[in-house]
Amino acid sequence: MYPEDLRARVDAALERLRFSAAPATAGLEEAMRYSLLAGGKRVRPVLALATARSLGADPERFLPVACAVELIHTYSLIHDDLPAMDDDELRRGLPTSHVKFGEDVAILAGDGLFAEAVRLVCEQPGDPARVLAALRELSAATGVDGMVGGQYVDVAGEETDAEGLRDLHVLKTGRLIAASVGVVLTLEGLGKPETIPYRRFASELGVLFQIVDDILDVTESDEQLGKPRGSDERHGKLTYVSLFGLDRARRLAADSHVKATEALAGAEGETGDLRRIADYIFTRNA
Amino acid sequence: MYPEDLRARVDAALERLRFSAAPATAGLEEAMRYSLLAGGKRVRPVLALATARSLGADPERFLPVACAVELIHTYSLIHDDLPAMDDDELRRGLPTSHVKFGEDVAILAGDGLFAEAVRLVCEQPGDPARVLAALRELSAATGVDGMVGGQYVDVAGEETDAEGLRDLHVLKTGRLIAASVGVVLTLEGLGKPETIPYRRFASELGVLFQIVDDILDVTESDEQLGKPRGSDERHGKLTYVSLFGLDRARRLAADSHVKATEALAGAEGETGDLRRIADYIFTRNA
Repeated sequence: MYPEDLRARVDAALERLRFSAAPATAGLEEAMRYSLLAGGKRVRPVLALATARSLGADPERFLPVACAVELIHTYSLIHDDLPAMDDDELRRGLPTSHVKFGEDVAILAGDGLFAEAVRLVCEQPGDPARVLAALRELSAATGVDGMVGGQYVDVAGEETDAEGLRDLHVLKTGRLIAASVGVVLTLEGLGKPETIPYRRFASELGVLFQIVDDILDVTESDEQLGKPRGSDERHGKLTYVSLFGLDRARRLAADSHVKATEALAGAEGETGDLRRIADYIFTRNA
Repeated sequence: MYPEDLRARVDAALERLRFSAAPATAGLEEAMRYSLLAGGKRVRPVLALATARSLGADPERFLPVACAVELIHTYSLIHDDLPAMDDDELRRGLPTSHVKFGEDVAILAGDGLFAEAVRLVCEQPGDPARVLAALRELSAATGVDGMVGGQYVDVAGEETDAEGLRDLHVLKTGRLIAASVGVVLTLEGLGKPETIPYRRFASELGVLFQIVDDILDVTESDEQLGKPRGSDERHGKLTYVSLFGLDRARRLAADSHVKATEALAGAEGETGDLRRIADYIFTRNA
């Protein structure tokens, strides 16, 4: 079972966030909250809280940084959906931000979410040097050598083989998933050997997430996905399925799931939640 | 005379910045550097370094945070120029980012610059608690209650009077200019009374900057501006000139210049550079 108690805490914390201090910017906040509160499993912030619990720390204390990761993820979805990028009109069964609010507001809603994410991390309780190190990790996972760079590689569309595909996804999806776990390790000030099982787990989880995403894009109905099926194919994107076929992609997902859970074996804490998140990602159907 | 020695240090530091760690993202770095190194007076980072020098600190030490402000400013220009926003094709005499690299890459170049700006501040030497406070100030100046919010108010286009216009510019331009000075005060750990003259100066400078911008948009040639003249009018924007007429706008600029320099009188340090930056902003012709 997915750790729904942690998801509920994340949802409540996201719901409480306010960004606008003046009536003139209320419409921007509305657009930001529209995408932020559109639901979803909250995999990244739940991973952060589950990591905290696994280390024996109170998850509640990590809500600012966990929410910040979700803001960054939401910002990336809004920008990815733009007409100049993937040009998607539906996300989680709802009109995408630019369809609902216009392209200009959608761009700014993404920009605003990223700025507010940084501000949130600055409010994270803890030793300032560790908070700063966590923010360094998170901004690196977001920038050119992370999510934004991965999105660039995706639109540039020059990857043609398995290695290129894996590199793309490590940047585009993997770094932020890894950072969801990593920032908590950093905030707890763990030494390198203790963090290795967690970091190995998180990095494999990013791979697993993407293989399953590619599989679902060809196997699930539009309603289940909340967006039109086959959009990767429509965009001519290289995927695990187009590269290896469906059967082989399913075996790769199973291997990756095994690797992720095996990595946890070396962790000292209680890793049940983290394993259940990996199970969810492996078996999800949307 | 504008403090050209500080500008030279900023330009050299910006030139040294590298963002991409893999060949696949080299094209993104190229787009980011294209806009970042397109020139300009570097008003914001020079303000930061001039503030440091005024406080008797070595400007060199503040280069990371000063460059970060310029990255954020550049990111805002790239996104403002997009077809969905102001749809401008020229900036500083060069094709804008989306004209040169395509809209998708331009969006990502802006996103990347912001992420790398945050990362740069995380590298800023100094007491971590102060660095974190400076980053809080900078992200607040960038977010919904700052630059991004101001850009939203601008595209929403609902401001109709002098107060609305001033509020818009305080957010869109003023907060980041104020933060250019503010982050250095914060990093130096100054107490509130000592910072008041500097903060008052910086906040007035934002107003001055915008009035002069509005005047130049109707008085200067395309070549001097490096972009088509009269673009505010074309976009139907409310400006200091459309609201008050050219003569009154010029008097407002002169008043604002006096207020800015008078604010400095209360500062304890050597404020010559700061005054010369205000003079430059008041008398510039591009």
